[in-house]
Amino acid sequence: MTSRPDVSAVKAALRTQAIETPSWAYGNSGTRFKVFAQPGVPRTPQEKLDDAARVHEHTGVAPTVALHIPWDRVEDYPALAQHAKERGLRLGAINSNVFQDDDYKLGSVCHPDAGVRRKALRHLLECVDIMDATGSRDLKLWFSDGTNYPGQDDIRARQGRLAEALAAVYERLGDDQRMLLEYKFFEPAFYTTDVPDWGTAYAHCLRLGEKARVVVDTGHHAPGTNIEFIVALLLREEKLGGFDFNSRFYADDDLMVGAADPFQLFRIMYEVVRGGGFTSDVAFMLDQCHNIEAKIPAIIRSVMNVQEATAKALLVDREALSAAQASGDVLAANAVLMDAYNTDVRPLLAELREDLGIDPDPVAAYHRSGWAQKITDERVGGTQAGWGA
Amino acid sequence: MTSRPDVSAVKAALRTQAIETPSWAYGNSGTRFKVFAQPGVPRTPQEKLDDAARVHEHTGVAPTVALHIPWDRVEDYPALAQHAKERGLRLGAINSNVFQDDDYKLGSVCHPDAGVRRKALRHLLECVDIMDATGSRDLKLWFSDGTNYPGQDDIRARQGRLAEALAAVYERLGDDQRMLLEYKFFEPAFYTTDVPDWGTAYAHCLRLGEKARVVVDTGHHAPGTNIEFIVALLLREEKLGGFDFNSRFYADDDLMVGAADPFQLFRIMYEVVRGGGFTSDVAFMLDQCHNIEAKIPAIIRSVMNVQEATAKALLVDREALSAAQASGDVLAANAVLMDAYNTDVRPLLAELREDLGIDPDPVAAYHRSGWAQKITDERVGGTQAGWGA
Amino acid sequence: MTSRPDVSAVKAALRTQAIETPSWAYGNSGTRFKVFAQPGVPRTPQEKLDDAARVHEHTGVAPTVALHIPWDRVEDYPALAQHAKERGLRLGAINSNVFQDDDYKLGSVCHPDAGVRRKALRHLLECVDIMDATGSRDLKLWFSDGTNYPGQDDIRARQGRLAEALAAVYERLGDDQRMLLEYKFFEPAFYTTDVPDWGTAYAHCLRLGEKARVVVDTGHHAPGTNIEFIVALLLREEKLGGFDFNSRFYADDDLMVGAADPFQLFRIMYEVVRGGGFTSDVAFMLDQCHNIEAKIPAIIRSVMNVQEATAKALLVDREALSAAQASGDVLAANAVLMDAYNTDVRPLLAELREDLGIDPDPVAAYHRSGWAQKITDERVGGTQAGWGA
Amino acid sequence: MTSRPDVSAVKAALRTQAIETPSWAYGNSGTRFKVFAQPGVPRTPQEKLDDAARVHEHTGVAPTVALHIPWDRVEDYPALAQHAKERGLRLGAINSNVFQDDDYKLGSVCHPDAGVRRKALRHLLECVDIMDATGSRDLKLWFSDGTNYPGQDDIRARQGRLAEALAAVYERLGDDQRMLLEYKFFEPAFYTTDVPDWGTAYAHCLRLGEKARVVVDTGHHAPGTNIEFIVALLLREEKLGGFDFNSRFYADDDLMVGAADPFQLFRIMYEVVRGGGFTSDVAFMLDQCHNIEAKIPAIIRSVMNVQEATAKALLVDREALSAAQASGDVLAANAVLMDAYNTDVRPLLAELREDLGIDPDPVAAYHRSGWAQKITDERVGGTQAGWGA
Repeated sequence: MTSRPDVSAVKAALRTQAIETPSWAYGNSGTRFKVFAQPGVPRTPQEKLDDAARVHEHTGVAPTVALHIPWDRVEDYPALAQHAKERGLRLGAINSNVFQDDDYKLGSVCHPDAGVRRKALRHLLECVDIMDATGSRDLKLWFSDGTNYPGQDDIRARQGRLAEALAAVYERLGDDQRMLLEYKFFEPAFYTTDVPDWGTAYAHCLRLGEKARVVVDTGHHAPGTNIEFIVALLLREEKLGGFDFNSRFYADDDLMVGAADPFQLFRIMYEVVRGGGFTSDVAFMLDQCHNIEAKIPAIIRSVMNVQEATAKALLVDREALSAAQASGDVLAANAVLMDAYNTDVRPLLAELREDLGIDPDPVAAYHRSGWAQKITDERVGGTQAGWGA
Repeated sequence: MTSRPDVSAVKAALRTQAIETPSWAYGNSGTRFKVFAQPGVPRTPQEKLDDAARVHEHTGVAPTVALHIPWDRVEDYPALAQHAKERGLRLGAINSNVFQDDDYKLGSVCHPDAGVRRKALRHLLECVDIMDATGSRDLKLWFSDGTNYPGQDDIRARQGRLAEALAAVYERLGDDQRMLLEYKFFEPAFYTTDVPDWGTAYAHCLRLGEKARVVVDTGHHAPGTNIEFIVALLLREEKLGGFDFNSRFYADDDLMVGAADPFQLFRIMYEVVRGGGFTSDVAFMLDQCHNIEAKIPAIIRSVMNVQEATAKALLVDREALSAAQASGDVLAANAVLMDAYNTDVRPLLAELREDLGIDPDPVAAYHRSGWAQKITDERVGGTQAGWGA
Repeated sequence: MTSRPDVSAVKAALRTQAIETPSWAYGNSGTRFKVFAQPGVPRTPQEKLDDAARVHEHTGVAPTVALHIPWDRVEDYPALAQHAKERGLRLGAINSNVFQDDDYKLGSVCHPDAGVRRKALRHLLECVDIMDATGSRDLKLWFSDGTNYPGQDDIRARQGRLAEALAAVYERLGDDQRMLLEYKFFEPAFYTTDVPDWGTAYAHCLRLGEKARVVVDTGHHAPGTNIEFIVALLLREEKLGGFDFNSRFYADDDLMVGAADPFQLFRIMYEVVRGGGFTSDVAFMLDQCHNIEAKIPAIIRSVMNVQEATAKALLVDREALSAAQASGDVLAANAVLMDAYNTDVRPLLAELREDLGIDPDPVAAYHRSGWAQKITDERVGGTQAGWGA
Repeated sequence: MTSRPDVSAVKAALRTQAIETPSWAYGNSGTRFKVFAQPGVPRTPQEKLDDAARVHEHTGVAPTVALHIPWDRVEDYPALAQHAKERGLRLGAINSNVFQDDDYKLGSVCHPDAGVRRKALRHLLECVDIMDATGSRDLKLWFSDGTNYPGQDDIRARQGRLAEALAAVYERLGDDQRMLLEYKFFEPAFYTTDVPDWGTAYAHCLRLGEKARVVVDTGHHAPGTNIEFIVALLLREEKLGGFDFNSRFYADDDLMVGAADPFQLFRIMYEVVRGGGFTSDVAFMLDQCHNIEAKIPAIIRSVMNVQEATAKALLVDREALSAAQASGDVLAANAVLMDAYNTDVRPLLAELREDLGIDPDPVAAYHRSGWAQKITDERVGGTQAGWGA
């Protein structure tokens, strides 16, 4: 145990971590049964940035914000970037949306009708235009495409249409831009999903080239899937583009990160650390749509949960672990990992925050700040942001 | 195989089958990502009944329609019943809704706040009032109550609150009225659901008394759950109140009945037949919310799929099956069941329809009828029915 | 947070905890693909007790050992009890085995043949005789009964046979004896299992009477099942008899307790504490069959994991939790629970062990003790214990 | 519907189908709880071939038999091939076994110890030697490699070791030989499996080259996985090597093909037909280990079930389907597929058998043949074949 990592090295590593928050998590969200609106929810992309700035102010590690087009469409993207900059933020990944127009009932880039496919492709290309304007590195592509019934459409033909659209977008990317392809097990399509698993996303990215990477949304897997295994594989193949973090007990529940299975989050972060993903260009993004709890403190909590899992992963005594693994000592090797997991890293993170000059307790500091009351009072009238706006 | 049931007996049994369609299946529905509106969708409970009448006209076995309160709230229920009667229909089960008011964010009858619980209870009692007015036998209770996070609320205390509300409603039931308690694995609650499985529903119904029964929604189970086993058990315990039929590949996908696993539907219907449920007061209801295909023909298809599964179940050679089971001949017993399943019962059902004086091909007849065009042309303006209205 | 439980009270509670280890976990086990034998594995029930005594010596909280009949059948049970007593142990629950005789290919108490059912019943009654001789309180019943194919046997008839056998055994129980009925989702039966879920076990126990209770094996559920919910319900119904602890990522993996999802184990223990199960007659038993790691230290680790989860559960600030729950503060309530979970309780448990006069690090103490080498050297010849012997 | 395929064309296609049966399915098998031995089970590879010959005789479409090494190791493979030939059979795929030696407790080609890895590799190379001797085209590789606990071994390093072994075997393959890499979700490893999904198998095969293909075992997926989607993808990528057919309700239940979900089997076969897999070099193999029913008739039944699913898939009116798909008519497209599925193809297959000069009812013919009695009488003494021998 003498080889356990030095705490100051762990803190130094944690200082470099950057966790991107998604603009849409600041708006209302819900289930098909009901969207429960919350007071103070932003009405504009600018107000979403204002809220995101609070998360960064209190955590110190959330400097970028992902945008969702068209939900965050504005006339003047440089002005939006400037709005962000004035609040200590930068604009992050651009997320496309080809699932909410009536034309997309049977799909977007995989739709049987070529006209609908062209429309969807135009949107994707517009997203790259926006990236040029915002300086974003990553285009994150998630498709709701799929079918609800056996026979509804031709599985293989849809793959061909998908490949065609992806190639056109890839072609359009700038030298420093990347395409992150997300997969999802099911929902909203209920029989086939056109990119249902990492293998499908990987196969497409491989054909496209180096700028195409797979993004792992932790809520998008079949029951029981070993996500950290996928992470390890994608890092080995140099195809891991990033994460959409959230948590789930059942399906794509979109709960706060680490809320359902903190041990799994730790195992994932361990594979990231072990595979060099923590010091590479892997993007750590949140993608949660918590419905019933207050928006901003829930995002703060998610950021903290990622930090705690990362801290534990960094604390793993990798020398001792390797030795136990090499000798085939199952119990010893497991014990090394569990020793790090069972450590209470909250004091370490409190120290880190004090080093950064911020309050050691971000949630309490947020509550004291009066921001929640302020936005409730001031954001009156207009249309609250949500999935439909 | 000489003991295979007589075809005329099978047809006679099928003639008595009554499948209730749900008013809400005629309206728009969707996922949290998007509701795709359809042309011609009803704007009023009366128009839903008009559509339901088409289903009954073309299938001959869908004489009742379930209502959902408040979606189908009207001033004058006897008039609504009369509207139904004029179209050859009757009003069926009353479905309560205590999940769409803002007050229900943390639950209804299980909510930590007593005021919210009282409000929810009032709604349930109002539903019984409506039953009195409509002459409905069954009150179907589904609660979205639950929690999203560990610790959010006290699991046990919520059970106590649930029991209290159920007892109050039970007390209010008339002599010929029943309470059907539905369970659901998850959604919209993502950590605990207050009635997550048949065991929980059964335990409550047992305490309440004979008028309380469990309703099995075929889409509301954990992956891999053997639903026909539950059906057999509940019939043995005389606690099966009815079915909410639909189908699913993943979660509560709400696809057309029998679309995902027709063999499972057959096995369920076999247990119903074997357990006497087909000739008792078990209610056969559809509860599907198909999103992308035309409403009425999809419901016709579901009704036909229930019929086909029932016909196959009735065709099982139960003498031969019992003999094979008693002798421990695994392959022979399975083969008896599969023989019925593999039979093409569509000719038999076509005959049945001709006996009933209706078109042997309900879907084709519906398409020829011009109804789809008619409602598209005539139902202009107003607000289309959907989950929110 | 000032209402957080006093550490000395927590330690006092932990001191009273008793965790039963299963005799069969000391023997060889494996999968259908291979049983990997280990050196030093016991050859007799007495040697199993010798190993169990090491677990109790190093943990201080494992004073009883469950027996499995016929694997632990001996001529003289009082002598076996005496062997235990001399090592500081007592004999615990008696576990029946009606799944390994060739006659049980199609079931035991649910078998279509009455002769086989009688044979199985005789075995169960013999187990009660053994309880009389050992002074065991609990008869734990797990049935592998079920079917592999649709149609193979009659689901409902099998329930009748099951009820008949259970009633006969219940009748035979002494005043201070209990019957613990275990349920299992699947395996070794692959289509139906005759007691597949808590609801089935509960329904049977309810009919039998107060001495019949449900036992929750943490590995025996459908994917995604909320086990702590079941625990809360059974405690509310006064029908929770005990636990078979183990852990699993996929099916009934039988891994060390807490190895797969330590947060779930904590949530379960919290419901036990909250529901009064910790101070009642709920039996805490291990039932794991770890295949590739050393037997004794893996059991020590499991015992420690139960202790750690219990300590965290006891540390929950229940006043603060109730207050947050009552006010509907989702984030605060969850935070109270997580605060306890995130606490590193190992120092507290080390103190507890020092109070008990044992080494604060049980695994290290075991390794230093030389026992592993001793049994490897001495247990030569004979037939190692395993599932088949 | 006028474009529905011509029955004679369907029969002609079915005539060309060849379904390989596995030698091990003729021996005893079971679960970790119990192996129920059956009378008449083969004791030698030759006797397994004798039984396989009955399956081919009665079905006409099972001309090859897969071998499992070392279970089917013989001195003289050409003599074994001759034994097969004399019975109208050929030897099929060679299946390696690197999971039953004590050395493989922590893995084979992924084991942390280089010595164990070399031993495993030698076995794989020996299998290619055997292929040379038997004239087998396919080497089927399934690895039980994996870990049971987080931390037990390094996920990524194990992938490297796997890649190294696969490369060495690939190098050794002859010009007309192929390597079929099988994936499995879990079991016997319970935390990570080194080839857990099609993506992992695909990634390795892609690097290896054209002779490496993925094999889809229908029982080896996470709950809810859409297997036909994977089939469509692998065919599109020209990486589908073949199938291991069996069925399951829960995990790798190894039941008769088509027993659990005949509709899924049909959908899979439809994708095979649609993707050209039926007329290419895709291998159709059974891999089932049915435990409680008679061996030979259960295999006959599985062969028949594959045939029935294939017949239905061939009957799909692909012109009508394409038209409905192109027009976005969800219900019509689904109806075309269901029309084929709902057809009773047993008369067609009876005709096919009569064309082939065999009994139209293979199971009945087998029972009449007296073979079961003959092997029960004659195969006395010796050691019955099973997974361990």
